[in-house]
Amino acid sequence: MTGVRVAGTGLTPFGNAPERTSRDLFAEASSAAFADSGVPREDVEAVFYGNFMGELAEHQGHQGPLMAEAAGVRAPATRYESACASSGMAVRDAVMRVRNGEHDVVLVGGAERMTNLGTAGATEALAIAADELWEVRAGMTFPGAYALMAKAYFDEFGGGREDLAHVAVKNHENALTNEKAQYQKSIEVAEVLDAPTVSSPLGLYDACPLSDGASALVLTSEAYAEEHDIDAPVSITGTGQGGDRMALHDREFLARSPAAREAGEEAYTDAGIDAGDVDVAEVHDCFTIAEVLALEALDLEPVGEGITAARDGRTTADGDTPINLSGGLKAKGHPVGATGASQIAEVSKLLAGTHPNSEHVADATTGVAHNAGGTVASAAVHVLEVAK
Amino acid sequence: MTGVRVAGTGLTPFGNAPERTSRDLFAEASSAAFADSGVPREDVEAVFYGNFMGELAEHQGHQGPLMAEAAGVRAPATRYESACASSGMAVRDAVMRVRNGEHDVVLVGGAERMTNLGTAGATEALAIAADELWEVRAGMTFPGAYALMAKAYFDEFGGGREDLAHVAVKNHENALTNEKAQYQKSIEVAEVLDAPTVSSPLGLYDACPLSDGASALVLTSEAYAEEHDIDAPVSITGTGQGGDRMALHDREFLARSPAAREAGEEAYTDAGIDAGDVDVAEVHDCFTIAEVLALEALDLEPVGEGITAARDGRTTADGDTPINLSGGLKAKGHPVGATGASQIAEVSKLLAGTHPNSEHVADATTGVAHNAGGTVASAAVHVLEVAK
Repeated sequence: MTGVRVAGTGLTPFGNAPERTSRDLFAEASSAAFADSGVPREDVEAVFYGNFMGELAEHQGHQGPLMAEAAGVRAPATRYESACASSGMAVRDAVMRVRNGEHDVVLVGGAERMTNLGTAGATEALAIAADELWEVRAGMTFPGAYALMAKAYFDEFGGGREDLAHVAVKNHENALTNEKAQYQKSIEVAEVLDAPTVSSPLGLYDACPLSDGASALVLTSEAYAEEHDIDAPVSITGTGQGGDRMALHDREFLARSPAAREAGEEAYTDAGIDAGDVDVAEVHDCFTIAEVLALEALDLEPVGEGITAARDGRTTADGDTPINLSGGLKAKGHPVGATGASQIAEVSKLLAGTHPNSEHVADATTGVAHNAGGTVASAAVHVLEVAK
Repeated sequence: MTGVRVAGTGLTPFGNAPERTSRDLFAEASSAAFADSGVPREDVEAVFYGNFMGELAEHQGHQGPLMAEAAGVRAPATRYESACASSGMAVRDAVMRVRNGEHDVVLVGGAERMTNLGTAGATEALAIAADELWEVRAGMTFPGAYALMAKAYFDEFGGGREDLAHVAVKNHENALTNEKAQYQKSIEVAEVLDAPTVSSPLGLYDACPLSDGASALVLTSEAYAEEHDIDAPVSITGTGQGGDRMALHDREFLARSPAAREAGEEAYTDAGIDAGDVDVAEVHDCFTIAEVLALEALDLEPVGEGITAARDGRTTADGDTPINLSGGLKAKGHPVGATGASQIAEVSKLLAGTHPNSEHVADATTGVAHNAGGTVASAAVHVLEVAK
């Protein structure tokens, strides 16, 4: 079993680009990743690509080979779809293939085109990540689902809207240095609380935006990186996946994410670390409450205490374990299929010391990326470490 | 590296079932596979699921966890989408995971619901497997694409409609014993030639039907099968994947399938066999010409000679290398996401001696399954062998 190195990363700007196709976006992200890596395209042996709603947004399925072509790569390509965890699953499979010696060099990433659908159209398209028969037909959309989860959390553990507001404020603050972020703009707690309600108790600033964008990673085996003198100081050392019942009504607890816990435990065991070793993490904050649930599922906060983490500064840039130094989905943006691989890119740069926010985690050696699908019916967690 | 055994297989009937959801179909197929295998559901460690057009047919994405639930399995689940090769890719990944020791027991399969869209709706939905910008907008659908490929073949190598008719006649003949087949009905060459033209030179009987259906496989490691005394006489010994440019106009030859050739060569090498060792195969005959191209890509026929294989009896049930003894996509049916895994089920039963057409291949030890996406921009090939 070989180690897996992050040789290069590339992201498009995340934001409003309704005129850009997903192939155009992925071409940009993959070009950047190749340039960053120094790895020639000809060495790529397989492409792992995440996309969620291409069928609805672009009337385009079968995006695997299309994206290999967009990336200028002649290699077999597969599309992974696991709602908002699509490229997290692509990363997981890519890591396993390299680790097991199937491939030395792979291209991994994802893209999503969303804003061309408009807000109502994109919200309806996003809803296909929930159970069509039992949730969507009853009128459930994701803001509603996460609002139920937030209410359940408040009922069980306490906390309230102001605590969640601190999550949004923190993530916007972190995004100020991120040139690719959709919002490079600070916000105040009062603004969050005054924003229009989307689905009570969640307001507009509790939700991530709709975004277009792409992400790409060039991953290599340790042996390849050494032999070709590739500057790749960070390894992906752990991978985990979890699953849960699809519909909220089939779950025992609304305010817990067992799929993320399962994925986290598997990834930690795989890497031979425990939660206490984690110096920095990117977690899937599609809504502010989602960040809270992620922290608890990953054992970065005790159950019932994640709600105070941002407010009390434990997860801010200068806290013990900074969370979402990229700005998170909330401020960086959330082009669904691109998100999972983009989190790996951010953590990799944070650990390598090449991220604009690396100064906040100067001694960090271990980071985590947590990518979730739907109301966390799917989760992928990866551990990254500075290579010894 | 451990061997991978086919412990159980399950298929729904393929055909018209517009009222059945894909979860309903997959529940039936997976139940059958578990019953066939004797493996308890609790032992499943991961689910690999192929689906192509759920977003359009059922407004349902994120089908991985939904299908794990339908199968009564509590394990992480991922959906693979590679057009008509979706479950072929799911099988490939599942095989690699078991082989590399990541899992001992996995559930693999796929489903598709199509007929609820109607013929025009399903044809339009299928078109998303082609290039939306450069093919679909110009009016191309798959019958048109394969008609271009057939014309190019006739121009380059000769042959004609009557040769292709023999492919359809053969596959219908093979399906007579297949209870799950959409058409258990012989046809004559004259009927094929007299059928309405779909896209010249292809007529109605050159095309596979629209189908609803699901397939499931329980795969285990060799060690698990031995330890639990599972009756699993067939191994998957080779896996290969190929990719090509998406749009036909970007390819050098229309009448060749380099992605299938690449996948076949990889699978043969992986299994340590060559084409001469293949006793029986299921190939992706979405159109009659597709079977011809598949035979040549897999080196089962020399380039330019596949066109006469059915006509001259080399690929009929009593020929040297019977092809599509299940009836193929043509007569068995083609519920897109289910097809790849269903081919593995057929080859496995043919080799195990439990297929109604096993008598035609009584001494067979080696079989191949070939699953293609779009106009073969994606291909997955697997080699199965009677375990020693």
